Amino acid sequence: MANVAVPPGRYRNGKRMKLWTRFKTSHGRIGFGLLQGDQILEHRGDLYDQPVATGATIARDAVDLLCPCEPSKIVALWNNYHALGAKLGKAAPSHPLFLIKPATTLNGPDAVIRRPASYAGKIVFEGELGIVIGKAASNVSEEAARDYILGYTLVNDVTAAEIIEQDGNFAQWTRAKGFDTFGCLGPFIAEEFDWREAELITTLDGTERQRYPLADMIFNPWQLVARLSQDMTLLPGDVIAVGTSIGVGSMKEGALVEVSIDGLGTLANRMGG
Amino acid sequence: MANVAVPPGRYRNGKRMKLWTRFKTSHGRIGFGLLQGDQILEHRGDLYDQPVATGATIARDAVDLLCPCEPSKIVALWNNYHALGAKLGKAAPSHPLFLIKPATTLNGPDAVIRRPASYAGKIVFEGELGIVIGKAASNVSEEAARDYILGYTLVNDVTAAEIIEQDGNFAQWTRAKGFDTFGCLGPFIAEEFDWREAELITTLDGTERQRYPLADMIFNPWQLVARLSQDMTLLPGDVIAVGTSIGVGSMKEGALVEVSIDGLGTLANRMGG
Repeated sequence: MANVAVPPGRYRNGKRMKLWTRFKTSHGRIGFGLLQGDQILEHRGDLYDQPVATGATIARDAVDLLCPCEPSKIVALWNNYHALGAKLGKAAPSHPLFLIKPATTLNGPDAVIRRPASYAGKIVFEGELGIVIGKAASNVSEEAARDYILGYTLVNDVTAAEIIEQDGNFAQWTRAKGFDTFGCLGPFIAEEFDWREAELITTLDGTERQRYPLADMIFNPWQLVARLSQDMTLLPGDVIAVGTSIGVGSMKEGALVEVSIDGLGTLANRMGG
Repeated sequence: MANVAVPPGRYRNGKRMKLWTRFKTSHGRIGFGLLQGDQILEHRGDLYDQPVATGATIARDAVDLLCPCEPSKIVALWNNYHALGAKLGKAAPSHPLFLIKPATTLNGPDAVIRRPASYAGKIVFEGELGIVIGKAASNVSEEAARDYILGYTLVNDVTAAEIIEQDGNFAQWTRAKGFDTFGCLGPFIAEEFDWREAELITTLDGTERQRYPLADMIFNPWQLVARLSQDMTLLPGDVIAVGTSIGVGSMKEGALVEVSIDGLGTLANRMGG
């Protein structure tokens, strides 16, 4: 939590935002609710359709936090920050460029990133903002798009970097980013988060490696939801990983990567081994 | 059904194979079962874990057939037939080259393929064999792979062809193949189908456009399941669309595309409009 100036659930002005969390108790029960201080106010029903408070609370420290949503797909963007595009000498795209990370990539807060048995090469972290879809979106306008967003979360879009260009005829984006545990996500979904003044920070073993303003996005979250909803129906719980900016780097076995945004908290995952 | 020499559920030698189907009744009830002649022997439970015959039968003509499975992902191959690779001047890959079509692409037998509202360009059919996974597969050997296959089905891997190369920096395979209704699948899952002597036929408005032997695959189904299970966990019901060969072509509004393989039947879908 030291990466950011304000704690999860707070804006810089001190105002609160809602933070959804999903958790597993020591007895293996899975639940969800709103984080309030060190307590979770449990809810029941459908997170995406008027969930109801049960009245029960449970201490955050007594449970393991899980991915706060269970996406059917993670739509992962490439070349969506001006600064990284400029560094790589790539023109800004005229439509979002993306691949799909399957649900089997999902990896919750504090869960271990596993090296694929079949791959000995470089594995890199990519700290990103994640958009969590709140209701089915198909061909929605940019103006309407914000109503289809439940909230925002943090993503580490882990990538087996040496696979991408391994075959000269076909860039293997899906394979490089599709391995089990390569979609780190969480710890919360923040409703009413304002991305326009926030910055994302990624640390590797405590050393800052990425710090960039979300306002540098080429397609902003509302544009992304609108444009991508032309390409496919986005379902409740689906996640758009909006792309990363400069500073991505290699993770060695045992390395700890922490992705943070003011108010969204910190997503921490360690490389296994 | 005129495309092929033997009806669904039969080998050329007359022997039967099991054909699974999923259906919706006129009352909206969804069920599944084994096709036997013009009847469906209903089953209950989990298709992937010892489903049980209910004893009830229902006439095939009385129901609408649905996609026979509900994949969490469709893994779609590129450059997996020697003949097409030779025609395009592409070397055989050393590992399967793939993208993911999201579950929102799914389109059942006889369902309409819809042109995306945002796209006025060429839309092409690609007749393909589909592998349906029967149990969770992670890092399985080629020898063990066949035990992870429930059966085989037919796929029309519909593609908005002009999108692929629209951005010079990033081939948009996922976007071009990821639109809703672009994953036509069915009508059955055939257990114990032997792909080694079969050929796939695609007709456009009754005219043959593709006819190629499945034995021309670069990575065969067992190799595909083994190799792809190194890249991600394949889940029960997931589908591998093994790639197409020569003869793909454009579908105009109103066109009827039928994909057939001896014993697997015919997957028919019409372009809307």
